[in-house]
Amino acid sequence: MPSALKGKDILHVKDLKLEQISLVLETAARYENVVANGGRLNIMAGKVLATLFFESSIQTRLTFESAMLRLGGNVVSVTDVKASTSGIKGERLYDTGKMIDGYADVAVIRHALEGSAKELADGANVPVINGGDGAGQHPTQALMDLYTIQKEKGRLNNLNVTLAGDLKNGRTVHSLSWLLGKFGPRFYFVSPQELRMPPEITKALCDDGIEVVETSNLEEAAAKSDVLYMTRIQRERFTDEQEYERLKGVYVVNNEFIQNARRGITIMHPLPRLDEIAREVDAYEGSAYFRQAANGVPVRMAIIALVTGCE
Amino acid sequence: MPSALKGKDILHVKDLKLEQISLVLETAARYENVVANGGRLNIMAGKVLATLFFESSIQTRLTFESAMLRLGGNVVSVTDVKASTSGIKGERLYDTGKMIDGYADVAVIRHALEGSAKELADGANVPVINGGDGAGQHPTQALMDLYTIQKEKGRLNNLNVTLAGDLKNGRTVHSLSWLLGKFGPRFYFVSPQELRMPPEITKALCDDGIEVVETSNLEEAAAKSDVLYMTRIQRERFTDEQEYERLKGVYVVNNEFIQNARRGITIMHPLPRLDEIAREVDAYEGSAYFRQAANGVPVRMAIIALVTGCE
Amino acid sequence: MPSALKGKDILHVKDLKLEQISLVLETAARYENVVANGGRLNIMAGKVLATLFFESSIQTRLTFESAMLRLGGNVVSVTDVKASTSGIKGERLYDTGKMIDGYADVAVIRHALEGSAKELADGANVPVINGGDGAGQHPTQALMDLYTIQKEKGRLNNLNVTLAGDLKNGRTVHSLSWLLGKFGPRFYFVSPQELRMPPEITKALCDDGIEVVETSNLEEAAAKSDVLYMTRIQRERFTDEQEYERLKGVYVVNNEFIQNARRGITIMHPLPRLDEIAREVDAYEGSAYFRQAANGVPVRMAIIALVTGCE
Repeated sequence: MPSALKGKDILHVKDLKLEQISLVLETAARYENVVANGGRLNIMAGKVLATLFFESSIQTRLTFESAMLRLGGNVVSVTDVKASTSGIKGERLYDTGKMIDGYADVAVIRHALEGSAKELADGANVPVINGGDGAGQHPTQALMDLYTIQKEKGRLNNLNVTLAGDLKNGRTVHSLSWLLGKFGPRFYFVSPQELRMPPEITKALCDDGIEVVETSNLEEAAAKSDVLYMTRIQRERFTDEQEYERLKGVYVVNNEFIQNARRGITIMHPLPRLDEIAREVDAYEGSAYFRQAANGVPVRMAIIALVTGCE
Repeated sequence: MPSALKGKDILHVKDLKLEQISLVLETAARYENVVANGGRLNIMAGKVLATLFFESSIQTRLTFESAMLRLGGNVVSVTDVKASTSGIKGERLYDTGKMIDGYADVAVIRHALEGSAKELADGANVPVINGGDGAGQHPTQALMDLYTIQKEKGRLNNLNVTLAGDLKNGRTVHSLSWLLGKFGPRFYFVSPQELRMPPEITKALCDDGIEVVETSNLEEAAAKSDVLYMTRIQRERFTDEQEYERLKGVYVVNNEFIQNARRGITIMHPLPRLDEIAREVDAYEGSAYFRQAANGVPVRMAIIALVTGCE
Repeated sequence: MPSALKGKDILHVKDLKLEQISLVLETAARYENVVANGGRLNIMAGKVLATLFFESSIQTRLTFESAMLRLGGNVVSVTDVKASTSGIKGERLYDTGKMIDGYADVAVIRHALEGSAKELADGANVPVINGGDGAGQHPTQALMDLYTIQKEKGRLNNLNVTLAGDLKNGRTVHSLSWLLGKFGPRFYFVSPQELRMPPEITKALCDDGIEVVETSNLEEAAAKSDVLYMTRIQRERFTDEQEYERLKGVYVVNNEFIQNARRGITIMHPLPRLDEIAREVDAYEGSAYFRQAANGVPVRMAIIALVTGCE
């Protein structure tokens, strides 16, 4: 029986059915176990992954590449940021997709423009994975976040989850809220007034019967939460430098904060962090952000192997 | 018996004898067959290809790297464009060549300056392949073009071939006209007056008894041609922006054009295209440009394996 | 018995004990022999090296990567120079180190800022190798220099060694003088007055009983030396362009110079060279600079294999 993901592009979390999500999580757990025990997988031997990063994202690219290598496969890579603004844009990604078929068996694209991954996938026959397209999607980040929550908490159902920081522009929290929404959470959306979760996302969750509390008070939310997912206030999303300076330090997780949070709370962050999580918090056992980053490798291994039908 | 190409640098199509060209084409066909049937080649295991791209060319670089990986070898890569204008230029490429011997078994160089590949090859003991040096040569592109024509038409002899677009600056058509000239073609060189094929190339072909028709009328030429090789009018070759704007749209291949062309005409293009081939033409079965791009992998596999003596 | 270097970061030559230095040299010699005889090492199969080059250094990066590939391992690579000045700096390298653990088994970092390698190593559990941090250290360069001297001269003890050029800013000569100092050399430090070896280095050597002659006369020093280690006068170290122009050509090794030097003198240079060694000198059998560059591969193979415990 072919994998439920074989031949599929991974462009948007909403394309994924619950059984496909479960398949990714289970496969990732299995691979992680093999690697942790010093074993090697060789199921992608002779295959080539193309990582096309027209926007820089070191962590995302290197975990994808490491994932492919740990599956026994090989990688060709583009990190030419300028190509996104001159050489390759708009309709040309369709042609790039056509050409990928000649030299790769699967591709990851990251691009500053929303819709780029779709354009590439329209051209390519090989599976295309969206590694982040502007304000659009970053589905593998959301899947590794989900994987992390399951691993840290032992379950996905019935969790109180706080998403905090820049919820307006945070691609990560948009995808994650949608994915987690399938598992009956209670959400606390914590942000300054200017950076609230887009109303259509909140509404869609409420329509599905999910309880959402919107607030600007992080302490109160953390006192009731199993998981706190912090995000960075990103300078590049602001046109007004003063507004950025005013908002960037509004939430800070430090040891004192942890003392007042729910006991055993799991702290997550997509990284890189600025000052929103103090380094002293790294020693707290519930600080999962570095484990979360490391989970990128097995989750991406699973996705690569499943879409290429090598699993 | 060692390969007729073992230890040889591939700098210029004119360095290649007919038997060497045939050897590349035959080897490429064999490799393509192995890969298409899901087989793996491992003849370059433990060997390292250095791709030194001091000028960006994603398609050329990635097909070379994929070729090496599909032969079982490994790749180290430089894509530092700035290095060509500051860190490494002129005489220093000789030193770079000397150093390559220490870390690679074969190298590909692409550089904005004509003669760069020769300079590198003068220093290096390992075989050096020219991946394009400015207005100079791009021999592996010419070989994959030749391979494509043979595959698409079933022969190389007695073909009517139109080369169209910017024939003055188009490195690709210079090399291809020379290579194809060995097989007794009739050429139509189609361009605006300002972008004609350099007279010395046309003259050399005529001196060899090859029929060359120069014209600015693409429709007439296409009506008589087995193969139409389109090229892009490249902005970077023009100092006068207005002249570029005037000339760039002068030839456009669309479905109506195909209707009036010779039946079964093969459409080629070195890619990337701008507007000179409409996307609607992609569905025409004679549109070979994406297959042509894909042929870069087996042809480059053949060249790498032959010059290193691994074939 | 685990390797004396297993799990160790290689940040500074002063961290290395004599027995560890010997282990690197012996292991490198063994590996070089295997590769020279067409053999293959596969001891790093399934392992991943991350090369994080936030400052460009083609030769250093490619020899590290080739070393890892020749050990049977794989490589992921960052060459994003801009990341060092914006995206990743200061405290964040600590976080980068934490993340490396997720996707790599060993890392090399090169960075414009002194102390960067230490910062990364503080975060990472996997071994970190300093590939050059600004005016700081470049320990693997010093080790390959030492390896070269041993190979060229057949010994490390009792050698007369001239270090010449920019001794003030030359990271390479600082490390090498310290390493060689363990083997009882007589040093000639040859430089213009403005570019003398930092007094604390000279003093430390003298305190250890090593004879150091400081002079600006290269000919005299070369007449008495077994080894001449030339360095480049680096433009980027000067704020005053005129001073650079005045000093850059002060020492030039050409054939006439070699005639007057000690018979059999070995000429070394960390490369790239400018005009300080004329190309005519390449033919002189004592010119070891290209062999020195090639020695980077076996020495780095040894270091990678030893710190990861794969040797």
